Amino acid sequence: MGATPSRSARVAILSVGSEVVTGRVADTNAKWAGAELTRLGYAVVLHLAVDDDAGAIRDALGLAMDRADVVWMTGGLGPTRDDVTVEAVAGALGLGVGEDAATVARIRAAWAKRDQPAPAMAFRMARVPEGSVAFDNPAGTAPGIWIETRGRSVVILPGVPAEMMAIAEASVLPRLGDRVPGPKSCVYRILGVPEGEVDQRVRDLWDGAPAEVRIALEISAGEVLLRVLAPAAWPGLGALDAAIRQRLGEAIYTTEDETLEAHLIRRMKAAGLTVALAESLTGGLVAGRLTSVPGASSVVKAGWVAYSDAAKTRLLGVDRAILSGAGAVSREAAAAMARRAREAAGTDFGVATTGWAGPGGGTPEDPVGTAYFGVAWNGGEAVERRWFRGGRRQVREYAVTFALDLLRRRLTGVSG
Amino acid sequence: MGATPSRSARVAILSVGSEVVTGRVADTNAKWAGAELTRLGYAVVLHLAVDDDAGAIRDALGLAMDRADVVWMTGGLGPTRDDVTVEAVAGALGLGVGEDAATVARIRAAWAKRDQPAPAMAFRMARVPEGSVAFDNPAGTAPGIWIETRGRSVVILPGVPAEMMAIAEASVLPRLGDRVPGPKSCVYRILGVPEGEVDQRVRDLWDGAPAEVRIALEISAGEVLLRVLAPAAWPGLGALDAAIRQRLGEAIYTTEDETLEAHLIRRMKAAGLTVALAESLTGGLVAGRLTSVPGASSVVKAGWVAYSDAAKTRLLGVDRAILSGAGAVSREAAAAMARRAREAAGTDFGVATTGWAGPGGGTPEDPVGTAYFGVAWNGGEAVERRWFRGGRRQVREYAVTFALDLLRRRLTGVSG
Repeated sequence: MGATPSRSARVAILSVGSEVVTGRVADTNAKWAGAELTRLGYAVVLHLAVDDDAGAIRDALGLAMDRADVVWMTGGLGPTRDDVTVEAVAGALGLGVGEDAATVARIRAAWAKRDQPAPAMAFRMARVPEGSVAFDNPAGTAPGIWIETRGRSVVILPGVPAEMMAIAEASVLPRLGDRVPGPKSCVYRILGVPEGEVDQRVRDLWDGAPAEVRIALEISAGEVLLRVLAPAAWPGLGALDAAIRQRLGEAIYTTEDETLEAHLIRRMKAAGLTVALAESLTGGLVAGRLTSVPGASSVVKAGWVAYSDAAKTRLLGVDRAILSGAGAVSREAAAAMARRAREAAGTDFGVATTGWAGPGGGTPEDPVGTAYFGVAWNGGEAVERRWFRGGRRQVREYAVTFALDLLRRRLTGVSG
Repeated sequence: MGATPSRSARVAILSVGSEVVTGRVADTNAKWAGAELTRLGYAVVLHLAVDDDAGAIRDALGLAMDRADVVWMTGGLGPTRDDVTVEAVAGALGLGVGEDAATVARIRAAWAKRDQPAPAMAFRMARVPEGSVAFDNPAGTAPGIWIETRGRSVVILPGVPAEMMAIAEASVLPRLGDRVPGPKSCVYRILGVPEGEVDQRVRDLWDGAPAEVRIALEISAGEVLLRVLAPAAWPGLGALDAAIRQRLGEAIYTTEDETLEAHLIRRMKAAGLTVALAESLTGGLVAGRLTSVPGASSVVKAGWVAYSDAAKTRLLGVDRAILSGAGAVSREAAAAMARRAREAAGTDFGVATTGWAGPGGGTPEDPVGTAYFGVAWNGGEAVERRWFRGGRRQVREYAVTFALDLLRRRLTGVSG
């Protein structure tokens, strides 16, 4: 076995702030730190979030220090009386509270520019526990704080995401990165195979791998992501990678860290291919996802939200007989919509969605959750039918991914 | 003071999943639960997140039960060997593991529909700790689990957000709501006034209010939500409500707990009004948001994703001279797009977006982030210009909200 992250590289992330515990915001700071620290090779063992309350902060810091070697804290460094993190941490660690001279000077200078004396409250942001190292904040006032104590490292950063990230990137992550040998990370993005089946196909591959090799499966609206994180020097990574590719084959659409829509736009742009969309079920969301990618305009030429029968016939030009015969949710309608979108826009591909998102609608043969997807190209067309579980939002979300995947599979047939 | 939530109503939220601790996703489940439980009157004292690891789960459950009366867990209820939450919780509480008969029957029935025998792995999702109550999962397979033990309530829900929310809303929140004297909650949804200004206008109103009266401002893609949570018996609520309405006036578009798109669809449906969309900047997302509302089909008749100049002229019928003269990102283009969408679809309103989402594009007069919005109605049209800060995603998100708000303001002029 090669160099593996030592057992000492455990991190706990502790967020302080009532906006987090009461659910007014998602804890995106913790997400960001978790991703960055994992990338560096740390094992993030615990996330904690507590209110701006000195007792709760002390309690949580104690838990975090029991379970990890590095405690990554954010929040409660501002100037108001609600901001009690410095006092709480200093109290928990038996340290006094001093002022960081560089921060005091910066606060004075900032107020001098406004030709006003700095109010006493402003200097609250210069407070640091005694014996700590203060890092410059390139995006704000309160400094980052690093404390070495009792064999642990405690890092405290402001809760404002831009400030937290600026200090972390400039000062904290480089120092933490120097302490561990960086691991290698691979991601396999998989479409068309459910999570459970992906698991079954590949699970035995790492039965003999060392514990430091971490594998995770995650699902996101019809996609499965398989991630492997291994110590840089682990010799088994090449063989594991080859085996995963062999077992999953074409279901792996990319091993780049790119979204499905970015993947499609990149490939189509490179091949000079264009697409038009005709959306009923998905109401514009397929176009919305594709056009979220910068530069999508050279690929996505046009789209119709053909939500009503009149829009399908009068605007898109679908034969009225199809809608009155097979119905708007049918194989025939999906094919005609894809064909007409392609013809009208003069694109290489046409992609269409129609279905029952619910809660109303549906038929005995095509209950709520049923969707038909059409794709048309020069000289051909295809339709696929799927049933998705869940409420309206989930059905539509899965349908968007499925429509993009249908285009991807067709693309592979044509341009791959 | 009236009835306030008793000290016993403390909740800890515990999320299980490697995707959370390693920062691949933000813990939006915890955010959602924090907001719902706060709304019910519970004090959320702690958030925790740990890996899919039985030891870590047991440890975290212990911490949570030490500090709270209700532990709200999510994640690790799936069919794979990574999903160890049930065994870990049962182990920690000294309970055996059984199978929920209703879930077993549902799994059998689901596989029978596919004419396949259910694999043994599928039944892992029927596992529940002995003595627990299982709640039906309207959006998936794994049931919700409720355990009463050692004076604590432990709730376990699937990690898939749609399933978690479906079970919570149907079964868990109503039961938890019955246990506490519910506070009164008001929400004011505000458009067109920035958060800082909302804060300034109303901040002094609750200076004298008791601590149990909680006020929160939150922002979400161009909307500001002002929430007030007060003990049911607090006598000042009526006066506070009147003062808030007086200070914010028409900027409050609703005090119902409904999204902007649901608000629009409800009002337009009631008035028998219809709309068509012509989207360039927003690439289908305005239509996507409106059609997320059940029953939107009687209001949203058609949409064009007119991303290219050719789509704007050939498909939507915008005069080519406008695009070659004023340009595709202009007052004139936005007006013509809105007008043509309305005419072509035969609707009461036409709404259009065009702009520079970035990172490329922009002109000295109209830099990246600039957007023009058009609205056309029977006998008139209007255009508004806005500049939004942030990256491509944020500019588009704000633009969608602004377009919906433009329609709302027009609607108030016409049908209000």
